[in-house]
Amino acid sequence: MRMVDVITKKRDGGELTKEEIYFFVEGYTNGEIPDYQASALTMAIYFQGMTQEETATLTQAMVDSGETIDLSGIQGHKVDKHSTGGVGDKVTFIVGPLVASVGVPVAKMSGRGLGHTGGTLDKLESIDGLEIEMTKEKFIDNVNKHKLAVAGQTGNLAPADKKLYALRDVTGTVNSLPLIAGSIMSKKLASGADSIVLDVKTGSGAFMKTLEDSENLAREMVNIGNNLGRNTVAVISDMNQPLGYEVGNANEIKEAAKILQGENVEDLRTLSLEIASHMTVLAEVFETYEEAYEALAVNLENGKAFNCLRTLIEAQGGDVSMIDDMDKLPKAKYDIEVKAETDGYVSAIDAESIGIAAMYLGAGRATKDDQINHGVGITLNKKIGDPVQSGEALVVLHSDEEDAAASIEKVKSAYEITKEKVEKPTLIHNIIK
Amino acid sequence: MRMVDVITKKRDGGELTKEEIYFFVEGYTNGEIPDYQASALTMAIYFQGMTQEETATLTQAMVDSGETIDLSGIQGHKVDKHSTGGVGDKVTFIVGPLVASVGVPVAKMSGRGLGHTGGTLDKLESIDGLEIEMTKEKFIDNVNKHKLAVAGQTGNLAPADKKLYALRDVTGTVNSLPLIAGSIMSKKLASGADSIVLDVKTGSGAFMKTLEDSENLAREMVNIGNNLGRNTVAVISDMNQPLGYEVGNANEIKEAAKILQGENVEDLRTLSLEIASHMTVLAEVFETYEEAYEALAVNLENGKAFNCLRTLIEAQGGDVSMIDDMDKLPKAKYDIEVKAETDGYVSAIDAESIGIAAMYLGAGRATKDDQINHGVGITLNKKIGDPVQSGEALVVLHSDEEDAAASIEKVKSAYEITKEKVEKPTLIHNIIK
Repeated sequence: MRMVDVITKKRDGGELTKEEIYFFVEGYTNGEIPDYQASALTMAIYFQGMTQEETATLTQAMVDSGETIDLSGIQGHKVDKHSTGGVGDKVTFIVGPLVASVGVPVAKMSGRGLGHTGGTLDKLESIDGLEIEMTKEKFIDNVNKHKLAVAGQTGNLAPADKKLYALRDVTGTVNSLPLIAGSIMSKKLASGADSIVLDVKTGSGAFMKTLEDSENLAREMVNIGNNLGRNTVAVISDMNQPLGYEVGNANEIKEAAKILQGENVEDLRTLSLEIASHMTVLAEVFETYEEAYEALAVNLENGKAFNCLRTLIEAQGGDVSMIDDMDKLPKAKYDIEVKAETDGYVSAIDAESIGIAAMYLGAGRATKDDQINHGVGITLNKKIGDPVQSGEALVVLHSDEEDAAASIEKVKSAYEITKEKVEKPTLIHNIIK
Repeated sequence: MRMVDVITKKRDGGELTKEEIYFFVEGYTNGEIPDYQASALTMAIYFQGMTQEETATLTQAMVDSGETIDLSGIQGHKVDKHSTGGVGDKVTFIVGPLVASVGVPVAKMSGRGLGHTGGTLDKLESIDGLEIEMTKEKFIDNVNKHKLAVAGQTGNLAPADKKLYALRDVTGTVNSLPLIAGSIMSKKLASGADSIVLDVKTGSGAFMKTLEDSENLAREMVNIGNNLGRNTVAVISDMNQPLGYEVGNANEIKEAAKILQGENVEDLRTLSLEIASHMTVLAEVFETYEEAYEALAVNLENGKAFNCLRTLIEAQGGDVSMIDDMDKLPKAKYDIEVKAETDGYVSAIDAESIGIAAMYLGAGRATKDDQINHGVGITLNKKIGDPVQSGEALVVLHSDEEDAAASIEKVKSAYEITKEKVEKPTLIHNIIK
């Protein structure tokens, strides 16, 4: 088999066979197929697309290119959850304990990565002593005992995807649906869950800006999952503004914990219940979505879900008093209000700009070596649809520097205020199974 | 400027600016832009095409990537000729002397390359002593004195094209019209001619199989030439069977010499006169094509054109007696007839197969280190439309081995014979200016 023939076949709109796809993925991973042939193929895929079967095979080949995590030591049906990423997204900290509270095992592996705020692991490390590095045995043991553990990703998962993604990034083929879907799903599948719930964000603050693109991406991923024997459901959720009111690290943990204590932050609580419901239905704990939703909502009220978060923290060596008394969580030196300059209604909040403003404060990592400042962040006082008066605080910046001029500018540019009354945006746009 | 943005712009159907095209070509030539970005861009060009202006700019950038040959020391309007390649194509050996015979300077630079038979230089070297390596001064001096010289290409012409072509060859983007046209024209333009006549082959034995593709390629090339200030004309000529009756090296020289002595090998003579007519009109020696054709035909009859060939050979140190007495040309040991097995009419001769059969005999080079055997080759006795009887020789193989089984098989597979009468194919399909 010659790689140039594989490229030419795809260029001409042909459907690649399993042998051809594995030939490419294996050869590319081990260095026998050079970058310049891989980039030509991915550009051909960009234009010609891939069938569902090709996309699933590509994904499986990328899974097979490296190690996979064996979760068979965990009793019960393991359900994973993945978000395509947005600002203020702390759903994992709510959904994990919530799902665990009805007995579904959650074995969460996360990375750190770059971003406006820290990743799942960074946010958790707002709690003193909490340890996310552990042996595989301890991880599985924790899940079996407590139904919930969060650990740093170990092992060489889907190396073909890592290599290919880095190449696509510099050759203009990031934006190909089958390749995006395959990339996300290869990592999820290598992580060993039985079923997967995807939170696909849509809107100005999401990777996919239009509902149509988001739905198409969701469909690709659901197809891959189902094709490869994992029940997969995608929730299309709104990212036209940050999720909830907190953007940062410790403050996001705090907001999540409050939901688990029964507080109602509308969009955040609703989306968390939505995702947790699908997860528990996939895990066959409940028969219907409605039944799941109702039972899970009860566990937010009765403290069971919050208890699961406390147990997680204790089991991983964290200082649980920081979650019992959240004033103990890291806090920045200065609270700086950014005020509205006109009366009206909030009509848009550019999530990306809010994220960047948080990063300026030190909440995120622009390069691998940056340190996360867990105490800084942003609290939104106003969200889309809220009435606002000139002089009222739109947001409060939590900053360790007295001068947060760059962040203030960025926040100001993020908010749009109009005279006309504005509707709150729809939160859940679609469910794709 | 970032290369990924150039790729993305083309991917999305944008028109690249002169700055972007030069950024790519210069960066790629000097190694700052890696192969994997170049292959992604060429695949994007494959799908999105290029405007006439982009194609011309790309071509000029490739010319500017290396040396160019300065022919300003040659008096008169220099016209070059290029064929996209076919089997039995010895038109250069006829057209060169013919055009020189009316006073138009022909400064022909050729390569060797791989192929079924040798290239222009190899074929010429069938004549003992003929020297194709010479200084630039000697080359120009010869053209000024004799109106004709043929030399090996020296200098680093269009290195961007060389590098890019090698990359396209292994990444499935050879078949892109603007890239093919740019590649051919960059080498022609770097060779310094004032005007160019292109012989674009069409048919089963050509790179472009359909008339439409051939015309499109011709148009691209003519546009590039005219855009960059060289008058350019393309003749679309038939390559559904080999040109003339001889395929090889010495035997092709012999066939060409016979045309120059007034012999009439129909397709070969007609096409040579056609191309030479356009060349001499571009050189402004004649006003109209018809006038040129008539005058050139006279020079085939009166020996003037043949004399120019003799002069070329003498001037470059060749043994001119071999062309006065063509029995002195290299000859293979064995003549092996391949006979028809049925009665009927020749309906097809796959030129590619005839070429491969000649290569099996030793007429061409499969790898760079192969030696050309000048005496071997193939003489066609029958061409498309000819009646044939079972037992009659279709071709004669000139072989140095008694056993030419592989060539015989290949020739047999090339010929198709039908019961119905068959028309001779059209020779000149179109002229594109």
